[in-house]
Amino acid sequence: MKNILTVGIAGGSGSGKTTLTHVLAQRFPAYTTVLNHDDYYKARDDLSYEERAALNYDEPDAFDNDLFCEHLEKLRRGHDIQCPVYDYSEHNRTAGTKLIPSRPLVLVDGILIFADPKICNLLDLRVFVDTDADIRILRRLMRDVSERGRTIDSVIDQYQTTVKPMHEKYVEPSKHAANIIVPEGGANQIAADMIISYIREHLEL
Amino acid sequence: MKNILTVGIAGGSGSGKTTLTHVLAQRFPAYTTVLNHDDYYKARDDLSYEERAALNYDEPDAFDNDLFCEHLEKLRRGHDIQCPVYDYSEHNRTAGTKLIPSRPLVLVDGILIFADPKICNLLDLRVFVDTDADIRILRRLMRDVSERGRTIDSVIDQYQTTVKPMHEKYVEPSKHAANIIVPEGGANQIAADMIISYIREHLEL
Repeated sequence: MKNILTVGIAGGSGSGKTTLTHVLAQRFPAYTTVLNHDDYYKARDDLSYEERAALNYDEPDAFDNDLFCEHLEKLRRGHDIQCPVYDYSEHNRTAGTKLIPSRPLVLVDGILIFADPKICNLLDLRVFVDTDADIRILRRLMRDVSERGRTIDSVIDQYQTTVKPMHEKYVEPSKHAANIIVPEGGANQIAADMIISYIREHLEL
Repeated sequence: MKNILTVGIAGGSGSGKTTLTHVLAQRFPAYTTVLNHDDYYKARDDLSYEERAALNYDEPDAFDNDLFCEHLEKLRRGHDIQCPVYDYSEHNRTAGTKLIPSRPLVLVDGILIFADPKICNLLDLRVFVDTDADIRILRRLMRDVSERGRTIDSVIDQYQTTVKPMHEKYVEPSKHAANIIVPEGGANQIAADMIISYIREHLEL
């Protein structure tokens, strides 16, 4: 078997985990593949659009973790996978897939990946990005208003009704599954350098 | 100037930070020197024994941080230092000193080292060991009762009157100065391996 390292990067919405994932991926571009948990929202063809729109997407049960674990195991054994493609406007999985190639470094990005022990067991290194809740909501607000054209009111409403309670119920407790905790995410250069040193040593890059 | 790396390891009483310091020191025994903040409690020859016994030793002001920073700067520039020797039974500094030799890796161990920005500025890597308060008090209780012959009542009383309030006032907020946070301290082998990879790369060991 080839030498393969799976690194999970979890943390709350707006924590900077995706930035950290990019920083790591850019350091080893030829050796890295990224698996996003967000691509594994459940297919819900059994529900109407209105029913799908009303679901809670900030809890672990929203994800198809059986398929996610099957794919992560395949990447870990050195096989390419075909990842599902999710359509956010339809709140449903599409018929299409996209290729996620096998590479020595498998970065796994997701808010709730440490909330499932089966996923944790497939991650050789578990990094939790921990950023204060006030900074996280400001980042989310700026992103959703500037880049996604949403109103401030709708972002605040969603934050208070699902994002915050689900964070406190599932994301915050999942921090206990982390091997290391990175304050401030992608802006934390020293923590990124440490993870890079660890990856380089383990993959003999 | 020689290549020297200063690594601060902070965290609450019973967090496992001293165990982590030992794990790192044992990995590079010939290259490591350890500086303990506890050796730098202030000399208080101006006070009587009773007055010294009544002082709060869990707050930043209990430490001679000017001397501590001066010594840390010297170690960073490649010079040996003579560290003060503290007598806990007298609650005072003795006349003696002990040699702390200059080595490429300077490990700095102390509960409150991140509470002082001057100390933080002299640390190339700041590691905070974060362990749940219930586990920390149990470790402290076992250590003080089994190894130091204290009564359970006296340990609990000291914990509630100074250790816990000072932890919440000074130690917990100082976590914000950390570059990385290590859950569970010395028992966390993956985090220790990451720090070791980083040290090895920076010191070219």
